[in-house]
Amino acid sequence: MVVLYRRPDLSAAQFRQHLTQVHAPLAKALPGLRGYKQNHVCSDPKRKPGWDAIVELTFDNWEAMENAWASPEGAASDGDLPAFADSTRTTWSAVEELNLLP
Amino acid sequence: MVVLYRRPDLSAAQFRQHLTQVHAPLAKALPGLRGYKQNHVCSDPKRKPGWDAIVELTFDNWEAMENAWASPEGAASDGDLPAFADSTRTTWSAVEELNLLP
Repeated sequence: MVVLYRRPDLSAAQFRQHLTQVHAPLAKALPGLRGYKQNHVCSDPKRKPGWDAIVELTFDNWEAMENAWASPEGAASDGDLPAFADSTRTTWSAVEELNLLP
Repeated sequence: MVVLYRRPDLSAAQFRQHLTQVHAPLAKALPGLRGYKQNHVCSDPKRKPGWDAIVELTFDNWEAMENAWASPEGAASDGDLPAFADSTRTTWSAVEELNLLP
């Protein structure tokens, strides 16, 4: 999962446009990718988390994930991050998903 | 979605224990909750995101979400956060989920 902060010189709309129209096709080209979700922050006067989106990428296993990042498609996807993300705040990690309901 | 940072005086194991054994039952009692996932950071020498877990709560709509937070069960769930989370860093927001693959 990736917790994305937008580049400070981009508006929320510009960030969303780039993430959905430019970055999504690059990410979806990753070899071995089984699932891809983008979760975009909703406008909400009560809650301003700071981050702008959380992206979920699903692979069959750890090796498949590492192979994807080591591929040319992985390099292309990584190479696009500086075009829209604040690299000083954006973070990512493999996670273990516990589906507790239903 | 909630990006959780653990209280600095807790180990990763203590945080996980509390989130799975104590907090999950409180969250699952929220009225109107349709889905509940906990995503726990995996140990990985290459990637240390800072945050410890990302929790996803699903509701039918915005009103159902606000009603859940305003309920006694919402207060009980919120009240448990200081027992394991670093409130100065933990953030949450409603999100729009774009399921882009498959």
